Amino acid sequence: MAAQKTDAGRFFEDYRLAQVIEHAVPRTVSGGERALYHALYPARHALYSSDEFARGCGLPASPLDDLAGFHLVFGKSVPDISINAVANLGYAEGRFLRPVTPGDTLRATSEVIGLKQNSNGRTGVVWVRTRGLDQNGDCVMEFVRWVMVRKRDEDAPAPETVVPDLAHAVAASDLPLPEGLDFSTYDFTAAGEPHRFDDYEVGEKIDHVDGVTVEEAEHMLATRLWQNTAKVHFDASSRPDGRRLIYGGHVISMARALSFNGLANAQMIVALNGGSHANPCFAGTTIRAWSEVLDKAPTDRPGVGALRLRLVATSGGEAFALRDEDGKYLPHVLLDLDYWALVPV
Amino acid sequence: MAAQKTDAGRFFEDYRLAQVIEHAVPRTVSGGERALYHALYPARHALYSSDEFARGCGLPASPLDDLAGFHLVFGKSVPDISINAVANLGYAEGRFLRPVTPGDTLRATSEVIGLKQNSNGRTGVVWVRTRGLDQNGDCVMEFVRWVMVRKRDEDAPAPETVVPDLAHAVAASDLPLPEGLDFSTYDFTAAGEPHRFDDYEVGEKIDHVDGVTVEEAEHMLATRLWQNTAKVHFDASSRPDGRRLIYGGHVISMARALSFNGLANAQMIVALNGGSHANPCFAGTTIRAWSEVLDKAPTDRPGVGALRLRLVATSGGEAFALRDEDGKYLPHVLLDLDYWALVPV
Amino acid sequence: MAAQKTDAGRFFEDYRLAQVIEHAVPRTVSGGERALYHALYPARHALYSSDEFARGCGLPASPLDDLAGFHLVFGKSVPDISINAVANLGYAEGRFLRPVTPGDTLRATSEVIGLKQNSNGRTGVVWVRTRGLDQNGDCVMEFVRWVMVRKRDEDAPAPETVVPDLAHAVAASDLPLPEGLDFSTYDFTAAGEPHRFDDYEVGEKIDHVDGVTVEEAEHMLATRLWQNTAKVHFDASSRPDGRRLIYGGHVISMARALSFNGLANAQMIVALNGGSHANPCFAGTTIRAWSEVLDKAPTDRPGVGALRLRLVATSGGEAFALRDEDGKYLPHVLLDLDYWALVPV
Repeated sequence: MAAQKTDAGRFFEDYRLAQVIEHAVPRTVSGGERALYHALYPARHALYSSDEFARGCGLPASPLDDLAGFHLVFGKSVPDISINAVANLGYAEGRFLRPVTPGDTLRATSEVIGLKQNSNGRTGVVWVRTRGLDQNGDCVMEFVRWVMVRKRDEDAPAPETVVPDLAHAVAASDLPLPEGLDFSTYDFTAAGEPHRFDDYEVGEKIDHVDGVTVEEAEHMLATRLWQNTAKVHFDASSRPDGRRLIYGGHVISMARALSFNGLANAQMIVALNGGSHANPCFAGTTIRAWSEVLDKAPTDRPGVGALRLRLVATSGGEAFALRDEDGKYLPHVLLDLDYWALVPV
Repeated sequence: MAAQKTDAGRFFEDYRLAQVIEHAVPRTVSGGERALYHALYPARHALYSSDEFARGCGLPASPLDDLAGFHLVFGKSVPDISINAVANLGYAEGRFLRPVTPGDTLRATSEVIGLKQNSNGRTGVVWVRTRGLDQNGDCVMEFVRWVMVRKRDEDAPAPETVVPDLAHAVAASDLPLPEGLDFSTYDFTAAGEPHRFDDYEVGEKIDHVDGVTVEEAEHMLATRLWQNTAKVHFDASSRPDGRRLIYGGHVISMARALSFNGLANAQMIVALNGGSHANPCFAGTTIRAWSEVLDKAPTDRPGVGALRLRLVATSGGEAFALRDEDGKYLPHVLLDLDYWALVPV
Repeated sequence: MAAQKTDAGRFFEDYRLAQVIEHAVPRTVSGGERALYHALYPARHALYSSDEFARGCGLPASPLDDLAGFHLVFGKSVPDISINAVANLGYAEGRFLRPVTPGDTLRATSEVIGLKQNSNGRTGVVWVRTRGLDQNGDCVMEFVRWVMVRKRDEDAPAPETVVPDLAHAVAASDLPLPEGLDFSTYDFTAAGEPHRFDDYEVGEKIDHVDGVTVEEAEHMLATRLWQNTAKVHFDASSRPDGRRLIYGGHVISMARALSFNGLANAQMIVALNGGSHANPCFAGTTIRAWSEVLDKAPTDRPGVGALRLRLVATSGGEAFALRDEDGKYLPHVLLDLDYWALVPV
């Protein structure tokens, strides 16, 4: 029997607390995704570039960039979570539990962990914990994100408000550390910079100097590669101004790649503490980046320390300027991301 | 001895009935072509995305998208068949005999099966049956296409007119069904939609809703990837208006990928019954798509049915509008394709 | 301890004769890089397209395009050699010692072999011999290049002038010939053209006919893929005119791919005798190419001869026009490259 075949996606009243949504379209990755990541971003972290370097750090081979796995898992959640979202409000409690390597097949699930209708009655906030699972059903990464979603029917009753209690940052003691990781014979020459754990101070800021002007074709190639289906990234007619909105994750990956210059040894991302897409980004923008060291912690893996870093992407403006006097992000700030990375001690 | 080294390609009088042309440049495919297909098109059909899903359907691994194989074989035929073509007139009797997987090496041959000089004496129509062969010489796909080709010398004698008798559509009983294919434990959740064979009715039309605005860089990357050498796609100076014509196959793949939304379970393309590139497509166009169910048929593979589908790509306009009162394609129609796909029953 | 973390790169006074610089960020290549090369350039040489064809020529599998390896090695040297370069002055003595195949990990070193301060006291010329090494430490390619580099401090003392004695061209007897290479059963049909060693005459010129209009997104994808970090290719704000300069290697690869039409059997590049980037190239340019046969030589591999070729890339202009009356490159000449390729006899 014929019925409406296309899916308009979920609206606010379609979410239930503790509901688990299995996202569609599992994906097997290969060296192709890895090569494309290098074509799309100026990615140079040696662990993700060279099998030999990765083996020297105790891993079986060079994994796919951590953010590539993140984008794939995030992309799978889009049709179920954010297709009707008005705004992507934040991230928390992101943990990268094991590196993704060519041959892995990723799927994703999201659990609704919070709901709060807005006072206007027309929208609500949905909190989900999204998990990426591999071909064995093991969780390779998880993160919380929350989005503002439209209601289909403004008269639908408001759910009980539940706002999850989220960690301000993943605790150093909770950082997932890849099995076998060992930086005790780390090759600083091959990695490109001499700076180690002890060379970074909490509060230190680094201007990553380089800039990349982004094109429509590039951000669409990237966003499609992650099977992210949000219309606004692809359809120039979906916004009144005829512009395509660049996927926030494209800005994250671009900024992280630019941060090589000064943070070449911040090899692995193991936790995502939080993040805001402060202002939208469009083709033609020259993306720049700066970082701030927020915290430091030792780990129990040989030669491995952890840096908590703020990564800020900008479209220009003064280096290290983040907010105005009222605490609002400055107009040239595109991204304010908070993550933990592993570095040699 | 020096002689003219570049080849101007064949003209109408260079073709002979029953002539078999072996096309140059065999090509080995890998996960790289697969990843690029996902970057170039919003492709989400699970069978082509996940090795696990493909294995659940009885295949050894996830194949390359059927259309990627088609583009590769088509591309090889361009220098010999359509480099001097005035128009790409049609397709028929396309059959996808086995899925193409990373590691396969494809080459192509074309057999001339029809010739008809036009009454103007300056051009003629050439019909060829093009076959894609793998490293073992086995045919992986075949299709008929016909093109209008210029004569080099208008005074060359006209060949005897032979117009091949082509099937209006591949008969359901002639559909090639991949060895081992089994949809009896098909995972609808992973595939993304619940609709099965019985949910589709002949005559039903589906608006696929999404749109993608295409860029010069993208269609050139795609067309080059298939080693298609037609100048008009690459050289902005080859047309008086300074625009590059987008390869018709780029529109086919874009429309097919967009059709996921409503036809997520139309997993495998097994036959191409016909197709017209109704109007040219240029960069800046926002491509949309709709489908119509033309026919249905059971198959003898477990859990597998076949849908005959019309896939229409447009640059906008009213949904489901195809032709004007005179039977001519409306100006916003880019493609009218007729194919068979396999779906779970 | 916090210190300046980003590296401004070396200036002229930082180079010492006989200094060996190990470049950072080793890179493992896969089928992904191979597929991207085919998407970025109209590459059709059969040996680099088909495993079957390569095996028919005595190689274990189809290698990565020789120029892809060259770009990767070149790219690694950029942060240490040319990040502060005013001009890329030339190449010499390039030898491709063995084909690069998926799975190889490349790293690079450069040895300073010449230094000469310019009379203005503000810049100097640095000559380096750059080597690409594989995972076993074996040299896969080497080439000399020289660049004009700024001084950090104009008062720094000038080094002793040493100008290396470079071969005008790699001697035919010094050409590296891949182990096992055998063209005695070469498949001219699969390769795409019938022309063999004896069909080319010294002095013969070939107009490759085709043209490709280049886009910003494409040259940036390519240049990033090779991890080349030179700002001018990516940052539209780095030049007063707001344009991005296209990496010279992108022009080399585009011209070499275009040369298929007339030189389809000039399969392997084994030596780079010299090269000049005669004029800068920007997005929007339609690149064309022509070649001239400079020399011919037999080799001791079965069925294999060598052609020394001039490859000229242009942005238009008259075919075969290279220099004006004063010997200066004409404004439409982009590249003048001199290389040895292997062809079937």
